[in-house]
Amino acid sequence: MRYLISSIILLTVGYACQKSTEKASRELPANRYNVAFLVMNGTYNTELTAPYDIFQHTIFRQGIKAMNVFTVAATREPIHTFEGLQITPDYGYLTDSLPPIDILVVPSAEHHLDTDLEDSAMLAFVRRAAGQATYVTSHCDGAFVLAQAGLLDDHASTTFPGDLALYKERFPHLQVIDSVYFVHDGKFITSAGGARSFEAALYLTQVLYGEQIARDLAGGLVIDWQLAKVPHLIVP
Amino acid sequence: MRYLISSIILLTVGYACQKSTEKASRELPANRYNVAFLVMNGTYNTELTAPYDIFQHTIFRQGIKAMNVFTVAATREPIHTFEGLQITPDYGYLTDSLPPIDILVVPSAEHHLDTDLEDSAMLAFVRRAAGQATYVTSHCDGAFVLAQAGLLDDHASTTFPGDLALYKERFPHLQVIDSVYFVHDGKFITSAGGARSFEAALYLTQVLYGEQIARDLAGGLVIDWQLAKVPHLIVP
Repeated sequence: MRYLISSIILLTVGYACQKSTEKASRELPANRYNVAFLVMNGTYNTELTAPYDIFQHTIFRQGIKAMNVFTVAATREPIHTFEGLQITPDYGYLTDSLPPIDILVVPSAEHHLDTDLEDSAMLAFVRRAAGQATYVTSHCDGAFVLAQAGLLDDHASTTFPGDLALYKERFPHLQVIDSVYFVHDGKFITSAGGARSFEAALYLTQVLYGEQIARDLAGGLVIDWQLAKVPHLIVP
Repeated sequence: MRYLISSIILLTVGYACQKSTEKASRELPANRYNVAFLVMNGTYNTELTAPYDIFQHTIFRQGIKAMNVFTVAATREPIHTFEGLQITPDYGYLTDSLPPIDILVVPSAEHHLDTDLEDSAMLAFVRRAAGQATYVTSHCDGAFVLAQAGLLDDHASTTFPGDLALYKERFPHLQVIDSVYFVHDGKFITSAGGARSFEAALYLTQVLYGEQIARDLAGGLVIDWQLAKVPHLIVP
């Protein structure tokens, strides 16, 4: 969403130009959080774009350590999302040297309940990135990937409401939370996904930047953000 | 969002395979609404993906005339969204023969308040497509494009809350509605944009398919859809 008055648009344009050079050279601005979004064929659009947008818009807020957002797939070959968008990833975890990842985001993808859970290279990347990251978030069935990677054994989590039964069946040792938009336990924030991915992302911005910045970011996407109004669980 | 039990996943996979062939041959399944999403450099992710997802998911509902969704830009060269995703459009309105467009969706883009409004080829495409379409929807500043194309002269409309003043100033002859998620007047549905783009899209599915289908589509994205709870204006 545009949320800048005309005079600031020039600044935005300046950023866009700078950004294309960054992409080419793969140099990301320093003093920011690096946020990697794991994408693959079958990734669900909304669970990619909802947190991507909330996090990317941090660069327009003054006085905070903003976020570099980028996509990571197995390779940089274009992927097709579940809904059919063709997106070219910024990095390939099999082919490129990746920047340090501060926050790993795992949107759901079409095969997160079956074949993706047998993708040992993808699971190894997730384990490696999660080990290094300060926060790891999943949306919808992205929790199946984190669970399969063994990352949620000691953490409460949630997933897409329609897949909770399957989640509990497949991972009977996990502590699974129903009827919430998201669960935060340690470095892991797992969300119900879909359009509720906005709230999980806004919550993380509130943790990092405080309530006012989170509300401003929400306003840019025409969301009235109030954590108290959102069903969630934060494990102390 | 995944909202199908395992046995139906096979059907989904089947569709995905069929779809890639369709893209190559540019043949869209018949007996569906063709829904074109106008994209360009600077398009805002959420306003593209929110209606894209709601509409694309219609293909998983039985007994309705579902939707073919596709992106249209000036050419098929990759575009970079405002937030930095690189998307390859399905069609170029300057370069390709386009399928008939039943529904035209205009998400906002970074320069919809300035240089895009001077893009006469884009405006000509919008006029042409809107003339042919049964419905035309805009999200956020997409309304500026429709207004600049002269399409909203006789129709009430709305835009991004933060740009309403500028909208009224630039188009003083228009009937502009404040404080609503969307306005429906004739073939035009204009929305506040951002995350509220979901509600405008769900409303159109309710018009076309009825309330239950709209609620089912919403549920797939973890949205509790009830038109009565959404501030809106429908011009009789």
